[in-house]
Amino acid sequence: MATELISAKETLLREVLERVGDKWSLLVIEELDEDEPVRFSDLRRQVGGISQKMLTKTLRQLERDGLITRKVHAEVPPRVEYRLTSLGSGLGEALCSMWFWVEEHMNDVQRARRKYDKANS
Amino acid sequence: MATELISAKETLLREVLERVGDKWSLLVIEELDEDEPVRFSDLRRQVGGISQKMLTKTLRQLERDGLITRKVHAEVPPRVEYRLTSLGSGLGEALCSMWFWVEEHMNDVQRARRKYDKANS
Repeated sequence: MATELISAKETLLREVLERVGDKWSLLVIEELDEDEPVRFSDLRRQVGGISQKMLTKTLRQLERDGLITRKVHAEVPPRVEYRLTSLGSGLGEALCSMWFWVEEHMNDVQRARRKYDKANS
Repeated sequence: MATELISAKETLLREVLERVGDKWSLLVIEELDEDEPVRFSDLRRQVGGISQKMLTKTLRQLERDGLITRKVHAEVPPRVEYRLTSLGSGLGEALCSMWFWVEEHMNDVQRARRKYDKANS
């Protein structure tokens, strides 16, 4: 594969990897569902430890990338709901395999690093 | 999932994603094979555009993470060969699903961004 051909893809891949490598995006994607809308307040409770500001920022980025939708219901007070798009759901699945790999092989990587550092110090 | 429980995993996931989000690591993993060792010089030729210094650095990082092995054959001049470990091969597969997703949905994400930026400008 010629390096020139992949640079646009690489940029996006890198952005996507950065996005999903971010704990909050990851947790939000995990909590959202394509079929069931979730309210902002519930999402904040489910994603333990996230501030209102950070949740707002995370949701905006995900919405901008087309991974989630935001719907404001004209009520008093207004009800805001988020759900995963099919695009976001597909990314969630692809991400799963990376996540499983890390979960399964975290210790192998750490062992390899210790061994390498010992041999090269 | 409690946020505290995943922070170690998150750090490694982020590192792994950064590593594989790097064009050179990605291309090197793609050129290497578990069954067939590849010489440094051949690798440099196959991964078009990479400098000797950058290839050396990339290979060292991948070796440190246990993703590839490096073997020096006592010949004159010494022959240095690299191959993917089974760990590296597994990561390559997991990475494929992310890569395919990006390839398939790059335009969707870019379209979503343009739409979002237009609506929010």
